[in-house]
Amino acid sequence: MQKTVLTYGTFDLFHIGHLSLLQRLRALGDRLIVGVSTDEFNEIKGKKTVVPFSDRIEIVGALRCVDLAIPEENWEQKVGDIQRHNIAVFGMGSDWEGRFDELKLHCEVVYLPRTEGVSSTHIRKTLKVLDRSHVRELKQALDLISSIVERFD
Amino acid sequence: MQKTVLTYGTFDLFHIGHLSLLQRLRALGDRLIVGVSTDEFNEIKGKKTVVPFSDRIEIVGALRCVDLAIPEENWEQKVGDIQRHNIAVFGMGSDWEGRFDELKLHCEVVYLPRTEGVSSTHIRKTLKVLDRSHVRELKQALDLISSIVERFD
Repeated sequence: MQKTVLTYGTFDLFHIGHLSLLQRLRALGDRLIVGVSTDEFNEIKGKKTVVPFSDRIEIVGALRCVDLAIPEENWEQKVGDIQRHNIAVFGMGSDWEGRFDELKLHCEVVYLPRTEGVSSTHIRKTLKVLDRSHVRELKQALDLISSIVERFD
Repeated sequence: MQKTVLTYGTFDLFHIGHLSLLQRLRALGDRLIVGVSTDEFNEIKGKKTVVPFSDRIEIVGALRCVDLAIPEENWEQKVGDIQRHNIAVFGMGSDWEGRFDELKLHCEVVYLPRTEGVSSTHIRKTLKVLDRSHVRELKQALDLISSIVERFD
């Protein structure tokens, strides 16, 4: 019988860490279903993405290792998805370790290690450096002006 | 006979515009080969990427619409690649319109429209906005200090 694996995520700024996790999850079974968080659900979670939901789900669904991409719209849909898609394994990155253990009532639950040093946060930081030079220049200007102002104190 | 399509690109910060172009190129034939620019070749072109070559080629190669991803190491390899892989169609985004017409000696050459408003440059700009608040604050501080300094002039 076919063994189907299920996972969820936002997959903003799609990177090698996302791909590696999805490929390793897919290798745990014969089919991989990925729930991609909608922009509305991310808003509830207080998470703002650079890439809109429609693009994120299309990119995830275009991967050879992903058999089906579905929207993730709330915290409660997991049990329903597990039953509807006859899920054998629920898998997440180890940053979620222990957080979904209650799903063990319904299927196997695994947490896989994340790729070191790669994340959307990391990419955002790398990109921000591109603008840091402006901040540095302005700080130098401020220091200079401060020193001028001090002479009048 | 199988019709193979060939394209080249950098595919930094993989986005929906990249995916759409690759899927439409793939639809022109039965197989799609994608040359991904190495970091060394990008350096020659004066192009700096956020994502390293090894990640970029792995992501492109993981797409269902891509049958083979190969490194693009110089401007001259195209004719050799066309002959080696028995290419029927060479395709690029319309931002390259006319630039590869000399390859018409070897195969069909097509330029496909790019998706409006989506590019790595656009994503970079969106991300920079996250840091612009600091710049704005510093500018306000500068204005304030300038107005103080002016009083002493």
